[in-house]
Parts: sequence; C-alpha cells; structure tokens
Amino acid sequence: MAGNTFGQAFRVTTWGESHGTAVGATIDGCPPGLLLTREMIQKDMERRRPGTGGAASPRKEPDRVEILSGIYENKTTGTPLTLVIYNKDAHSKSYDTLKNIFRPGHGDITYLRKYGIRDHRGGGRASARETAARVAAGAVARQLLASRDILVQAYTIALGSVEISKRDMNDISENRLFCPDNEAAERMEERIIEVRKQHDSLGGIVEILAKGCPAGLGEPVFNKLDAELAGALMSIGAVKGVEIGAGFEAARLTGSENNDPIIPKGFATNRSGGILAGISNGDDIVARVAVKPIPSIAREQQTVDLDNKPTTIKVGGRHDISAIPRIIPVCEAMVCLTLADHFLRQQAILGFADQGGGVEKIP
Amino acid sequence: MAGNTFGQAFRVTTWGESHGTAVGATIDGCPPGLLLTREMIQKDMERRRPGTGGAASPRKEPDRVEILSGIYENKTTGTPLTLVIYNKDAHSKSYDTLKNIFRPGHGDITYLRKYGIRDHRGGGRASARETAARVAAGAVARQLLASRDILVQAYTIALGSVEISKRDMNDISENRLFCPDNEAAERMEERIIEVRKQHDSLGGIVEILAKGCPAGLGEPVFNKLDAELAGALMSIGAVKGVEIGAGFEAARLTGSENNDPIIPKGFATNRSGGILAGISNGDDIVARVAVKPIPSIAREQQTVDLDNKPTTIKVGGRHDISAIPRIIPVCEAMVCLTLADHFLRQQAILGFADQGGGVEKIP
Amino acid sequence: MAGNTFGQAFRVTTWGESHGTAVGATIDGCPPGLLLTREMIQKDMERRRPGTGGAASPRKEPDRVEILSGIYENKTTGTPLTLVIYNKDAHSKSYDTLKNIFRPGHGDITYLRKYGIRDHRGGGRASARETAARVAAGAVARQLLASRDILVQAYTIALGSVEISKRDMNDISENRLFCPDNEAAERMEERIIEVRKQHDSLGGIVEILAKGCPAGLGEPVFNKLDAELAGALMSIGAVKGVEIGAGFEAARLTGSENNDPIIPKGFATNRSGGILAGISNGDDIVARVAVKPIPSIAREQQTVDLDNKPTTIKVGGRHDISAIPRIIPVCEAMVCLTLADHFLRQQAILGFADQGGGVEKIP
Amino acid sequence: MAGNTFGQAFRVTTWGESHGTAVGATIDGCPPGLLLTREMIQKDMERRRPGTGGAASPRKEPDRVEILSGIYENKTTGTPLTLVIYNKDAHSKSYDTLKNIFRPGHGDITYLRKYGIRDHRGGGRASARETAARVAAGAVARQLLASRDILVQAYTIALGSVEISKRDMNDISENRLFCPDNEAAERMEERIIEVRKQHDSLGGIVEILAKGCPAGLGEPVFNKLDAELAGALMSIGAVKGVEIGAGFEAARLTGSENNDPIIPKGFATNRSGGILAGISNGDDIVARVAVKPIPSIAREQQTVDLDNKPTTIKVGGRHDISAIPRIIPVCEAMVCLTLADHFLRQQAILGFADQGGGVEKIP
Repeated sequence: MAGNTFGQAFRVTTWGESHGTAVGATIDGCPPGLLLTREMIQKDMERRRPGTGGAASPRKEPDRVEILSGIYENKTTGTPLTLVIYNKDAHSKSYDTLKNIFRPGHGDITYLRKYGIRDHRGGGRASARETAARVAAGAVARQLLASRDILVQAYTIALGSVEISKRDMNDISENRLFCPDNEAAERMEERIIEVRKQHDSLGGIVEILAKGCPAGLGEPVFNKLDAELAGALMSIGAVKGVEIGAGFEAARLTGSENNDPIIPKGFATNRSGGILAGISNGDDIVARVAVKPIPSIAREQQTVDLDNKPTTIKVGGRHDISAIPRIIPVCEAMVCLTLADHFLRQQAILGFADQGGGVEKIP
Repeated sequence: MAGNTFGQAFRVTTWGESHGTAVGATIDGCPPGLLLTREMIQKDMERRRPGTGGAASPRKEPDRVEILSGIYENKTTGTPLTLVIYNKDAHSKSYDTLKNIFRPGHGDITYLRKYGIRDHRGGGRASARETAARVAAGAVARQLLASRDILVQAYTIALGSVEISKRDMNDISENRLFCPDNEAAERMEERIIEVRKQHDSLGGIVEILAKGCPAGLGEPVFNKLDAELAGALMSIGAVKGVEIGAGFEAARLTGSENNDPIIPKGFATNRSGGILAGISNGDDIVARVAVKPIPSIAREQQTVDLDNKPTTIKVGGRHDISAIPRIIPVCEAMVCLTLADHFLRQQAILGFADQGGGVEKIP
Repeated sequence: MAGNTFGQAFRVTTWGESHGTAVGATIDGCPPGLLLTREMIQKDMERRRPGTGGAASPRKEPDRVEILSGIYENKTTGTPLTLVIYNKDAHSKSYDTLKNIFRPGHGDITYLRKYGIRDHRGGGRASARETAARVAAGAVARQLLASRDILVQAYTIALGSVEISKRDMNDISENRLFCPDNEAAERMEERIIEVRKQHDSLGGIVEILAKGCPAGLGEPVFNKLDAELAGALMSIGAVKGVEIGAGFEAARLTGSENNDPIIPKGFATNRSGGILAGISNGDDIVARVAVKPIPSIAREQQTVDLDNKPTTIKVGGRHDISAIPRIIPVCEAMVCLTLADHFLRQQAILGFADQGGGVEKIP
Repeated sequence: MAGNTFGQAFRVTTWGESHGTAVGATIDGCPPGLLLTREMIQKDMERRRPGTGGAASPRKEPDRVEILSGIYENKTTGTPLTLVIYNKDAHSKSYDTLKNIFRPGHGDITYLRKYGIRDHRGGGRASARETAARVAAGAVARQLLASRDILVQAYTIALGSVEISKRDMNDISENRLFCPDNEAAERMEERIIEVRKQHDSLGGIVEILAKGCPAGLGEPVFNKLDAELAGALMSIGAVKGVEIGAGFEAARLTGSENNDPIIPKGFATNRSGGILAGISNGDDIVARVAVKPIPSIAREQQTVDLDNKPTTIKVGGRHDISAIPRIIPVCEAMVCLTLADHFLRQQAILGFADQGGGVEKIP
C-alpha cells in the first residue's frame, strides 16, 4: 500500500532520503544475461548531477553508483539488482532556519499531515535527491531496451515562456539545456540570468521520444501504455501535467483532423503519439510534461510556522533556478522503466504463443 | 501483468466486451458496513447512458446494473462486490462492413498486433462500453467517499474550441453538456449541430473537482496522489492529456507566481490543485483532461485492410459526435476510485497510530 | 489488501457467497488463442458436484458454469474471462436455527470478529460453495497447461485412519473416492458408513501429482514454487497441512538418505517432490495436503451464542461426511492455477532470452 | 513476476547473494512513529549467526546490520527502511572444486535451468545467507508486533528422529538448540556428534507460536492467514512441510474430536492452531515446519557434471550438520512478517469503521 515500487515485471523499489545515509534502488525482474556494468549506469548519473546545465546550482554531488547485487561477470543473473548512491554532500545545518516553518509549494506540510513526522532537513522522500535512484534504475531499463534497439530521449521544448521553433536532434548535445533548438537555448539562458537576479525560478516543458518500440505494448484497460506513462511521469515531483501525442491540442481538433491515416508502411501522421487504445502502434512514442517552477526561492513569501502562526520565509541555500535540465534524465528514466516493464509483460503473451501447442503465433 | 485491475486497497477488476454477454466489475477491498443499494449504483449509470447530452447518439442501452455478491441487507459485507450489466443492444451486423478494414484512430489494429486476435465487432475492451463497468464500480467508491463527506464532480470546460467563461456550479445540471456556463453550453450545442452536418466529431476538456478530501492521501514516491490520478484518468480511452491544478500553465509561471501562500486557515490560492509532493493538502483537488475527438466518423478516410492494401473507410452506425458529455461520469468514477483507494491505504497508517503502544497519534 | 485474488501473471479473482445470487471467477492474464469451450470447464465442475463420492450428501447442485467474457469463436482473446455459476439450491431457512449460535470449527465467529457482520446463512465466503469458482478457473488453467502437455491429478491416499497400500493410477477412476487403491477405497467406504451412523465426520490426506512440468518454474525467494503451492493449497478451507515430496518424513532422514542422486537422465529418486531451491527440476511435482474432518456434525457440541452465553449445538442439514472426495478437483484447481501462473511468469525470462540482442538463449 | 517481495501492506524485498557485496532488505509500508534502533535488529541477527547451536559450523560471520534509510531520531518515518549486511566472509575459492558439478539436493541445477546462469560460488539466492536479510526485516516486524503485545517464538521439537517429550518454555534459552525440553536437547546433541562422524546431516521439526494476536487477521479467500503463513514458511529453503494446529494429525481425527469447543472465555482446546476459516480467532497461533537435512555432506554422492556426464561428489567446506537451530530465527522472522502485514491490512477495515459516517464499529 505504500508507494515506493514501480512496475510489475520490471519492478523497481527506491528508498532513501536526501539527508540520510544513502539513496538506492532495488530492481526485481531484470532478466538474466543482460550485459551491465557500473559504468553504464554511472553514465546516466552524470547527466543528472547538479552543476549540469545553466539553471543548476553549483553543488557537486559525486553521485557515484555502486551495484550491491544481481551481477556476475558483467551480466545480470536474474536475481535482484541493488544500486546504491551514498550521500556525501548533505548540509543539514543550512536547513536549520526552516526548522519551524513550512515552505510554500513544498511537501513538508503534507508529509507532516500524512506521517505525523517532521524531518526538516531537506525534503525527505520529496527531495529531488530521490530521483538519483530513479535515474540509476532507469539506466538498467535503458540497457534492456537498447538490446532490442529501443531508444529513449528527452529534451527541453520550453523554459518558462521561451519556446523552441524547431526540433533539431543534433542541437540537443550542443547546449546545456538539452534543447533541440540552439537559438532558443540561448534565449533560455538569458531568461535564466534574468530570473536568477529576481531571486525567482522557472518551469518549462520537456518532451520525451521513444524510437523503435514494437507494436503491442500496453495492457488494457487500466494499465494502458499511455496511462502508465502518465502515472510514471506525473510521479516526478515537479511535474503538473502530462500529454501524449497531440495531447491538449487534440481537444480542439475534429476527428478528421486528429485521426492518423493508416498507410501500408504505417501511419501517415503521428498525432496519436504512437499509442492507440493504450497499446503501442509501432510508431514513435511521444509524451510531454509540464514542469512547475522550483518552489524554493529567495524571495519573501507568506507562510505559517508549526504553531500555525503567520510568518514569512526566504529560502536560501544552493537551489537550482529550474528543474530543467536536471529533470531530463529523470523523465527518460521513467519512460525507460515503463517501456521495459511493458516489454517484459508482453513476453508472457508472445512466449506462450511462440511455443505452439495449438496456439497460433502472433504476427 | 494483464491490466484490468485498478487500485490496491479498494481494488477493481473490470471485464467484458461490447459485443459479448455482459460487462462487469468486481471490487475487492470495499470495507464492511457501508450502506449500498442497487439504486445508488443505477443512478450513476443513468448519467452515462447514451442519449444523454446533445453530442450523443440515439441508442438506448438499458444499462441495468445488478449486484451479484458482497451485499447483505443493503450493507456491504467486506467480501467482493460483483456488479454486472448485461449487453442487450449489440448490433454485430452493423460492423460486418468493417470486417477486413482497420479504422483510423481506433484500437483494432493494435489489438491485432498485441493479441493476434481480430474481433471486428465493436472495439472489444477498447469500446466505450467498458466504461459502464467503471461507472458502476465508481458509484460504490462514491458512496464510500460520501460517508466521509468527500464529493467528486466533473464538468465540461471546453468542447472543441468553444470554452467556458465562468464556473457557475448551478449551471451544470441545467444543460445537457454538464457545463458550468449555460451560455457556453448553448454555443457548444450549436457547434455540435455544425460538426454533425460535416460528418465529423469533436473533442474537449473536462475538469474534475474533489471537495472535502482530507490532507494526507497519496503514497510517495511512485503512487503519489497526482500520479495515480493521472494514470487513472489517462486510462480512459479518449483521454490524451491530464493536468493537476495550474497544470501546463505552471510551466510558464515563475516560482513566486506559482507557489500557493500558506495562511493559518489553509492556502491563499490553489495552483497546486490540492496536492503537494504527491500528498493531498486538504484543499480542493482539481484535475483536467484533454478528450480527443471520436475517431469513428462518416467521412472518408485513408486506411488499409487486413492484407495491408490501401483502401478508404467511412464509419457509419450510431456514433456520438463527442465523448463529452458521456465521459463526465467516467472521469468522476476514476477519481472516486483513486480517492477511495488512497483513503483506505492511509488507514493502515492512521489505524496503527491511533492504537497507542508508544506510537504517537497523527495530528 | 483484501485477499480474493490469486496469481500474478495468470490472475484469478473469485467472488460470491453460498447464499447470494452467484459465485464466479474473473481471470486476467490468460493468453490469447487458447482453445476453450464452456463444456471443457463444465467437465471439471461435474467432478466437484455434491453427490459425487460416497462421503457426499445427496444435494444436487446443478453448478452450470457460464462464460460471460473473454471468448471469441471458442478461443480466448487475451481479455478477462469471467465465469459465473448461479446459485439455485440455497435453502436459507435451514440455517435459521443457527442464527444466534456459533458453530465450532467454523468461520462464523471469526468473520464476525473481522468484519462486524453476521450473515448466518451458510458460511459466506468460507463456504465450500466458494470452491466452485476455483474449480471453474482451474479448468481454464488446466487447458493452458494441457496445451504444453502438463497434467495435474489428485487422489485420496488416506481417509481418516484408512490408508492406501499402493498407488495404481488406473484404480482412481474406478472408485468414488478417487483412490489409487480399490481395496483401500472399499475400506474407506465402510468407515464412512460407520462414521455416518455416529453423526460424526472424517478427514484425510490428498496427494497431488503434476507430470510434464518443465524445469525452471518458481521465483526465488518468496515466490518459490513450493511456497506458492503451499499457500495455494492451504487456502482451501479444510486444509491444515501441506508437504512437498518427502515432506515431514524428510525431517527424520539424513542428508545421504534424503538427497536425490543426479544421473544423466534426471534424478534417480524424487524425494524433493520435483522442486529444488523453489524451482521445478523437471521431475514429477508431488504435494500432499491434510484435510480436516468437516466441522458441521449432528452430534451435540459445546458452544456460545451471540451474547457469549454457553449453549450446545447439533448441526443438521445436508452435510457431507468428509471434504474428500469433493476437495480433490479443488486441490487440482489450485495446483493448476499455481503452475499456469508460474509458467507464464517464466515466459518473461525465456521470451527475452529467445530474442537475441546479445542475450544468450536459456538451455 | 519475480518473487523477491513479501507482503502487501508491510512489504519486504530482499536482495543479495552469498558471495556478492552484501545482502539486504527494503521494507515499504512500515508505519511512522515506531521506535527502532540498529541494536534492536542486531539482537535478532545474533541468534541467527553461525556458530550458534551445536549443529552449526565454526564460521564467524559478523552479520552487522546497518540501516540506510527510513529512520529519524530512532523512529521510523513511514518511508522505506533499507537494511544492509555486508558480506565479509566469502571464501569463493573453496567452491572452485564444484565449478563443473551439480550438488545433489541443491538449487544449482535448477538455477541454471531457470536463468541460464551458472554462478558456482555458494548458492546465489538459494544460499542460507539470504535469510540474514529476512531476519533483519523480521526484527522490524517484531518491533511493530511488540508494540501491540504480540510475541512470536520458535523452538525445536524434533531433530532427526529425536523428539521432545514436553514443552517447557523456560528450557528454550537453556540449551543451544532452542529446545523446550532440556533432556531431549541433550540427546539431540549426542545425535549431532554421531552424524557428524558419519559425514552426514540431519533435519528436524520447528514449532512456531504467536501469542497475543487479535482476532480478525487474515484475508479470505486466497490470503487466509494460514495460507500466507504456509507460503511464508515454505519459502524458507530447507522447509518441506508446514502444518497449522493439529495439522496432519487432523486428517485422522473425527469432527467431534477435532472441533474446538467454544466457551465464554474463548476456545476450550486449540486444535485449530488459532485460525478458523483463515482468520485468527484470538487464540495462540501454532505452526510447525518440517526441515530437511542439509544437502551438502562430505559423503560421496552420485551426480553429473555440466556436460551431463556421471560423476561423484563430496561437499567439503564449513557446513552445518543441520539447519536447526539457525533456522529458528528465520521461522520467527517469516511469521512476524506475515502477522505484521495482516495486522496493517486489517487497519483499512478497522480504521474505516472507527470513523463513523453511518458505518458501525467492529466489536
């Protein structure tokens, strides 16, 4: 009933707080025989680390991942993989001024209401630190998908009100915001400088693209692929909206405009975002998430203390201006975890059909 | 691994196809002692029936729900509730012309790719018929929530490009589109007439509001309340986007604009949509979904047949112009199911704390 | 959290009370393309019906199963199968004398303590009637296993203190007790007559044999195949003990006596019962269950009423002398459900390995 | 689908191999506010350590447990608890002689058949080392139960063919075999010396007693308390049989002998083992498990190598003569985990009923 596990066939449990000993992830259900090294996971960790991207704060978390179980001679064994990242950069003291005050836009007030526990040091499980474990687990899912030529990539398409004008995938690696439009990325950097001066913060929109996904993934009716992607992405702390394919724009279109014509080689357009009736159709899977601005800002804001007395707060410390770009690998991780889970879930159907016994093969 | 079950503590499994014998739902985990009659469930079924609302087709499904188990003397017993709705209005013949053709925007192509099965009569589990079972199960969840004064209501805020200008809750029951703006509802009806003439269809946006929800619901980190609502709502066939509170608009705001100031009596604004760090904060819960236009239209569209030969299709039959307003009670059902599940999940924490043994009560 | 669902990949939810409208089962996760007719299921139902076997009461429940969903042209579609058996033989009146009294050995006292609900008519979910749904669902699992040449059979090896002296599988169909020793079966029938005169009842031991099960089924460490079989079999109301292979006898053996020598064609003996370290080893799977005597007897017994006042009770009505032989198909059903579930769970591993991508095939 | 998680409300995932970096457990769902220190867990670890009890080998694993998450100021926070025990005593070399040979009675042959992976160093997840994580997690469950005055204790009632003649609970702490009969314990020690000389090993029977368990725990119909206990206990590597209350003996009794008469203060006898219809009845819960002899023996045995060629094997190394007594705390851990899970599961029912809203309290 607690909610720290994701997936059914490829099942990940994350654990750990920002100011505890470590954060980590245990993966149960990774198939045996998959090539996996610590370095493959570390590579994804690097993209998430603070200090990456212009909107990030100057902290330098090492974020070194270690594999405690489930590997033998660089291959998965089929037993649980445990990945751990020790916390080395926890400055509890910098949080002492917040000891008796709730931060607007933060989970400290709801955690207290839920658990009756007040841990003022960082955000407990609500901290962005928790996403390190997701990225580590997602890196394993990424390896599983890559062995089947399924590739997942996320990128920034809006930062605050600055939007992209094009999607040039080559640009993504050329700017610090993982933006497929270098020119827009420059304007985003300018906006960051402006907002930093105002002691404020920015949100934005991230798009996630999965290429090479076979048709047939997704389980009607509650575990549709789009439903699971929506839940996976909305479970990232800063995300307030998720859309698939045409998304909210589809609400304004007519059926004749929104339907993707079917042609012999597939679909003529991709307004469905690669998912029909909750099942992948073989086309690119496209999702977008709305990222809210970081709530911790150094501007004075109205709040209450633990005694419910009105007061004001300015949140100092080493905070990013935007969850973008650090949220990018987290979005990728959640999509990788979702696809790996559904890839394995579909094997129960395919594996059964492939073995004959009077059951026809699935085309 | 199959995906026909929703929830963990209040767990619903739906089953049945549009052209089979029946559709139904089994609820496992409904607590004992809850007042429940067939009529209470039937009431929700009526709101979903075809012929309700200007965008609906003239079919008259009786949609009579029956309770097969779990009730004794009008109270739940704690054992599984099974609700069944027999299909009486299945016109398989009207689908025979579609026997060898895939319908654009539909699940028939992906169901074939997933299961290797071609059931051309209606949409199988992808049919809107499946949602009858959700509404029946949701009606039970609604009763559970009502016993705790939690109320869930959905309403239309856009149909195609026609948007509301106000939210007057009294208007909702005064027009066929469950729209909180009677004047906008009129323009929506006009737009429906126009689009019907063009043999086309419309999407729109539905907002769902839950009032009276206590703080503390939602399970970090993957089963956050907003994550579960997003998954629940996106699992409805026609939904292509979900947002909570400020949603996609939050991407454009700065932190100082988006944070809800905390005041002694609660929150000064509700851009969070009643959820902070995935846990309800005691404020109204607000979600919105983007509904795509119905794909079955009587205009000629490009497609392929089972042999992957190009052809065209016009889908006749008794199809609605829009999933709105029939999707309204379905959205309510999914939110009721999500909240009932999390309400019960939180009892494990509260119930334990309430019993002493050195454990402090949760405020 | 409620417990009416069994399995993970082949997932069955049963519902219904002995004196309600119907009992039934919903199966989620049955693969598509499996040949299945109503008659195949009905065949298993007949073996479970009252009046079968010398220890059974003369009731004549029709136990006609109907398939409400999940079938198209005699093949499973991959969507949920719902099986329903309407109750036609419910004599609530015969239970009215028990209205205010708890029956020794029965669940009525614990159901009241758990749910706060007193439904005196039959045993609610604790009634043997519930097992009709298990047998129906098990018949589907049996078909799935049969398509892979896995066969499950149960038989009586002891009734009270009468034990078999041989296992001749041909005998099983030749006596009413499904006993592999016709001579012992005769003595069992004599014992039944004796005990019936004493208004008492009998327990016994059932052995379940699964032939043809491939090696590799079972999931370390908590979902070991023997652990799941033990849970499955102990979930049958009358079962008080479960053992695998040598079972309790293994406690008395030394390692050199108990280990099965490995030889090129397999194992020289089968004291393991076909399961090593929780994983099937390719040999016959052998389990045994201890069945307690039926608690409803027409002899006077000490008990209390709802006000906790001492009283006595004689339970009349149409009760069997022993749960054997009617429990035989129920034991088979639970083993079929367990094996089908693990067969499909193993596909996620095999299916992945079979598709290349650098991953080696599993031998 | 993989099987390394136990429980639904109090959910434990264990991970780690005998010859990897560490073994550990993550607990999701432990309620907040429970007093918990590292020392409380360590205390249970000490009882499981090798070298405890006369049947144990002289290894000295330190088995120091560390808490990586979920604790703040010696109280649980409601977030996942991760417990880790680093492996410091792994002598991979001593296993090199087994590199190409399967050990009779062991899981190495089935692990290879399941996963296609051959890790000859120790038993991977099948090693008794894995149970260290169970004991650590069980210690947390034990604290939860102790806060409600529920106490769980296991003890040896047979070692090989040496059986106890009495149950004197004071004796348990006075001999190395946790045996409630000091005189029998002496004979067991003699038998151990004898069998050690023969290079052979011994099984036995362990009884587990839970006192103070409230009525109402257990979830009909598949998650009955006895079904879950059976699954939990059978998931321990060496266990081949489980019985509740009268167990296999019940098969020989008549109904009038086996039924526990109900009297105003409870039950006059306890042949049910404290569980009726799968729900605890408030009496002591009593279970017994059959423990097989340790398969690793230094006597020559028949086996095959990886090429399926016949050969013989003598397993040297530091092996115990019997899984007893080290299995005792493991049995306690599994019962504690099962009871804690069901205790919390029952809160969803009780918590709901306790809050009024027209729902009556459960007595």
